[in-house]
Amino acid sequence: MPASGSDALSSAPVLSATAAPASLAATAPAAVHAPLGERPREYSRPLDLKRGFIDMNHGAGGRLSAQLVTDIFIPAFDNAFLRQGDDGARLPVPPGCALVMATDAHVISPLFFPGGDIGCLAVHGTINDVAMLGAVPVYLSVSMVLEEGFPLADLVRIARSMGDAARDANVAIVCGDTKVVERGKGDGLFLSTTGIGFVREDLHICGAGARPGDRILVSGTMGDHGIAIMSWREALEFETTLRSDTAALNGLVAAMMGAAPTDAIHVLRDPTRGGLATTLNEIASQSAVGMLLQEVSIPVDRQVNAACEMLGLDPLYIANEGKLVAVVDADAAECVLAAMQAHPLGRRAACIGSVIADRNGFVQMDTRVGGRRVVDWLSGEPLPRIC
Amino acid sequence: MPASGSDALSSAPVLSATAAPASLAATAPAAVHAPLGERPREYSRPLDLKRGFIDMNHGAGGRLSAQLVTDIFIPAFDNAFLRQGDDGARLPVPPGCALVMATDAHVISPLFFPGGDIGCLAVHGTINDVAMLGAVPVYLSVSMVLEEGFPLADLVRIARSMGDAARDANVAIVCGDTKVVERGKGDGLFLSTTGIGFVREDLHICGAGARPGDRILVSGTMGDHGIAIMSWREALEFETTLRSDTAALNGLVAAMMGAAPTDAIHVLRDPTRGGLATTLNEIASQSAVGMLLQEVSIPVDRQVNAACEMLGLDPLYIANEGKLVAVVDADAAECVLAAMQAHPLGRRAACIGSVIADRNGFVQMDTRVGGRRVVDWLSGEPLPRIC
Repeated sequence: MPASGSDALSSAPVLSATAAPASLAATAPAAVHAPLGERPREYSRPLDLKRGFIDMNHGAGGRLSAQLVTDIFIPAFDNAFLRQGDDGARLPVPPGCALVMATDAHVISPLFFPGGDIGCLAVHGTINDVAMLGAVPVYLSVSMVLEEGFPLADLVRIARSMGDAARDANVAIVCGDTKVVERGKGDGLFLSTTGIGFVREDLHICGAGARPGDRILVSGTMGDHGIAIMSWREALEFETTLRSDTAALNGLVAAMMGAAPTDAIHVLRDPTRGGLATTLNEIASQSAVGMLLQEVSIPVDRQVNAACEMLGLDPLYIANEGKLVAVVDADAAECVLAAMQAHPLGRRAACIGSVIADRNGFVQMDTRVGGRRVVDWLSGEPLPRIC
Repeated sequence: MPASGSDALSSAPVLSATAAPASLAATAPAAVHAPLGERPREYSRPLDLKRGFIDMNHGAGGRLSAQLVTDIFIPAFDNAFLRQGDDGARLPVPPGCALVMATDAHVISPLFFPGGDIGCLAVHGTINDVAMLGAVPVYLSVSMVLEEGFPLADLVRIARSMGDAARDANVAIVCGDTKVVERGKGDGLFLSTTGIGFVREDLHICGAGARPGDRILVSGTMGDHGIAIMSWREALEFETTLRSDTAALNGLVAAMMGAAPTDAIHVLRDPTRGGLATTLNEIASQSAVGMLLQEVSIPVDRQVNAACEMLGLDPLYIANEGKLVAVVDADAAECVLAAMQAHPLGRRAACIGSVIADRNGFVQMDTRVGGRRVVDWLSGEPLPRIC
């Protein structure tokens, strides 16, 4: 019975990149569980998925909570692990791997925006946090806080978006929980996702790995997500609608790892809240190094630049949701960059600077106009509820 | 450097109960990470932990977000995995185990109540979901949605409560995320926790495991948590303050598993939202069996009973947060029950009935007055935001 789930996992193309979880199918649980989705429906009234609304009963843990799961979540996320129907999921573990766990809360407003919605954003964000430690993301859990009165049609749309995003990234949503709060005590939907992945035990990609001489690569244009949300909120008009870059980066990471020797990629991180500037400061601090960037090399979309000027924002501090920063051994930088540019999510990848020795951990930048300045951490709040 | 974390894990007394993760320490990650907690503080202003409040900047991902982590969460949750300081945690995996993952959203109101608070409740609830599949809970992640204006003193108190609850249960809080929403868009604090545990591959405790002839055990009095919250909210007065039973059940599960042959415990589940009645209906449905209970055998605290009569509630539908239901082979029921009664969390454990053959999955009860009635699922909403 767990065949579909483990098939999906074992055939995941990214899994081979770290050479580890190929035996996931072999370690699938032996117990046969009654598939929740195939049980006879015993609900007195069908949910009105087009015109219905969430009420407090949907969060009470009784029959209506179960109906929400069988009628909305199981069809959207469908996989054998979820259908075990217990309060947790029992999952196979590939041998010889360390586990990577990451979690994100999502409170983005509005819930739907050009390029995505809170559902795919939450799936992508957590997959990316797992992938940034060099791990292959495999399992996700989902926890939702719904506000009474939330339209069921929106919930269906968001659940489908989560399911699609997870399937596209070869990740299974294996367990979840849903609570409901009274009208006026929430804001539609808050969504927390936790991801699990596996990484070869000899692979150590982490924020403390940057060394002087390393090259700093980014996978594409900076600031697209945050500016798309702000433009949408403020109803700013451009030649074309600015779209969020939200995307799962595990495929790009696999391509990069396949192109370089095992130890060549020292750090991976996705520059989300706080943007590129904050992410680089975090890495510099963790690794006790400095960084020197070339402003002219940092890719920024022309329209994003225009919007930033209009809104008084700096694209280096704006959140991305489908981009990564890589700190790479100088010798391997060229082939890693080429692998990024050959991937659909890395077409505008660029080398933006180098790691330098600096015990103070300063990130500096040679500016377009010829000066050099310190690029500090984000300290204010330019964009609330951007993810 | 990860010594303290892996020591804590390998010395966990419950770990030996499933005989699996004894080698956790041996598989600890080899990479040495800069301990976040020991980095020089670079914050311009200290947080006012006594009189300060959450503002939108604390959720922006910049310096103030980092300050919240280093000044509140790291000291409260302290362990080597959390101090890795990356967007996810890299964790050792014991060999020869399946993984169990469970998640919960917590929206309880009020945040502090007799017997606990949202922090320890969230830790206990997720530990229990993992333990109910026979797994040893080892790692937790935490995701918080804070409302602007939330008192920092309350956040400190809740974080400490989480850290204490996790340490008491030998579980490490290894990663987290915090978001802030505007005043009026949340309700103080919502908390999602995800737990990971490991279970011997040959052990299959799950909701589908009940068989006719099995005995149904409960670990103590029913309804304490829900009635404690309701009495507190409604300011009902009793001889003594009714307290929530919130507790981590992994130690009790280990004691039960140690007392019986490997395959004797078929199902474990904690009767939270929906109470005992809903939990038994779930198990009956998953296992395609019926159940026959003896009302007179179901333990209910005298004051909880009085409160239920006053509020028009049935204790069988009221949430528990430190109790479990076990469906156990008839031959082993006596020794499992004795092990429960010998444990501090199972003193009032009792056998409340048996599993019977019934393809319709009805849960029936011989009542105190001599009749027999069907105990149905919870379908209404007696108690909103009870967990």
